[in-house]
Amino acid sequence: MIFEDIHRIVILGTGNVATHLSLALKSANLDILQVYGHNLANTKVLANNIGTPYTNEIISIDPSADLYIVCISDDALDEFVSRFHLKNAFIVHTSGTASIKIFKEDYQNYGAFYPLQTFSKEKRIRFDNVPLCIETNNNINQELLLSLARKLTTNIQITTHEQRTTLHVAAVFASNFTNHFYSIANEILSDKQLSFDLLKPLIRETAEKVQSISPDEAQTGPAKRNDLKTRSKHIEKLTDFSEYQKIYNYLSNQIQKKYN
Amino acid sequence: MIFEDIHRIVILGTGNVATHLSLALKSANLDILQVYGHNLANTKVLANNIGTPYTNEIISIDPSADLYIVCISDDALDEFVSRFHLKNAFIVHTSGTASIKIFKEDYQNYGAFYPLQTFSKEKRIRFDNVPLCIETNNNINQELLLSLARKLTTNIQITTHEQRTTLHVAAVFASNFTNHFYSIANEILSDKQLSFDLLKPLIRETAEKVQSISPDEAQTGPAKRNDLKTRSKHIEKLTDFSEYQKIYNYLSNQIQKKYN
Repeated sequence: MIFEDIHRIVILGTGNVATHLSLALKSANLDILQVYGHNLANTKVLANNIGTPYTNEIISIDPSADLYIVCISDDALDEFVSRFHLKNAFIVHTSGTASIKIFKEDYQNYGAFYPLQTFSKEKRIRFDNVPLCIETNNNINQELLLSLARKLTTNIQITTHEQRTTLHVAAVFASNFTNHFYSIANEILSDKQLSFDLLKPLIRETAEKVQSISPDEAQTGPAKRNDLKTRSKHIEKLTDFSEYQKIYNYLSNQIQKKYN
Repeated sequence: MIFEDIHRIVILGTGNVATHLSLALKSANLDILQVYGHNLANTKVLANNIGTPYTNEIISIDPSADLYIVCISDDALDEFVSRFHLKNAFIVHTSGTASIKIFKEDYQNYGAFYPLQTFSKEKRIRFDNVPLCIETNNNINQELLLSLARKLTTNIQITTHEQRTTLHVAAVFASNFTNHFYSIANEILSDKQLSFDLLKPLIRETAEKVQSISPDEAQTGPAKRNDLKTRSKHIEKLTDFSEYQKIYNYLSNQIQKKYN
């Protein structure tokens, strides 16, 4: 049996995932027929960025694509799916958490195409080692998505919904919350007119260490060393940031308990 | 006025900072006369690693060095300083938090020489962009430490005690706590037999993003997007990890409030 490869794609959404996935698809010489977004200005920006037609009306979405990739936040996903009218389409979402069952009633060909990465519009990214997590409603569609994924990355995972959601939760800790801590660190430094630049080598090395040794081996700092003197000086230092004092104590206790 | 440069150094301590600072000093062709540690086995390991004599007896510490670098945790620092008998020495500690006043009563020449980086013995590091924070009791000693620091790194900061401690607290958030979150992510994945390898590109990119854009611009994820549906699915997913549920809610609320 020979499958027709996916070539012609419509991107639904204009956020960070839509932007970076579009750029990666374009770099892989795939044909992005059209970009759809409900906000016309944002849609124009992305369409111009990748040089494709665009629309902000669902009814005007090109019906001839091989694949429709929905890059819309989970809160808006169900409503969009119910309004989307091309029920014969092959449709996938890019969510880390939503089930592919949201497509089950109305579609024959569907799946999930979840890139496990953090995307910001302002920062270009190499897509070729981004883990792409794939789930489909049948094997034929799995082969089609695998073949598409191979054009984008060397890191492809066939995952169940359960596994994908677990990866997504873990990613919130490993990325969203760590970035929030960069932001807290930035705030603590700014308050004393110190530059965030001073932390950049540390931040890079902290991420680099766990590429080759485990996070448990990589742990350092006063809590790990059970250095109570330093901890109490730090708490003093955070007097103006009571919320951060709480986090400091909570996490330090957790680390101390774990390693001592 | 001409200052004699620092060449001959004794390292006091055998932990992560002692190890990596010794390696950096050796690479810069400085003369490490001796390593001292109270634990003989650890001291031997480091001394063999860098090819220097060693001792585990304070009284046998070589009195002829230009500089003594104390790489000892803050909890043990005061006691060590009071026991160290070479009161004519030029002595510095490497602490992010301790004051240089701990040397004031007994010494004429002292300071702090604090590398703002995370060091693990198992992971080699490039030292040449590590920020070195310097504080001294006078300008002559400052010049001496500056001259030494220039042999190790291009990133030198003259900092007050206040600034150094602020940097250290910020570093705990930017490094120790983020690494702890890598470890939590690892635990969440292991529980479902998923590999931590899948998060490595994400972790690297999260750290890479803030090298060129601010943490606030870099923030992504369900809390930032105000995606309550995803948040509640994640909380469900963390049923077996009640402590992590608490952290998830606390930080998500903080992020949500900040960006929405």
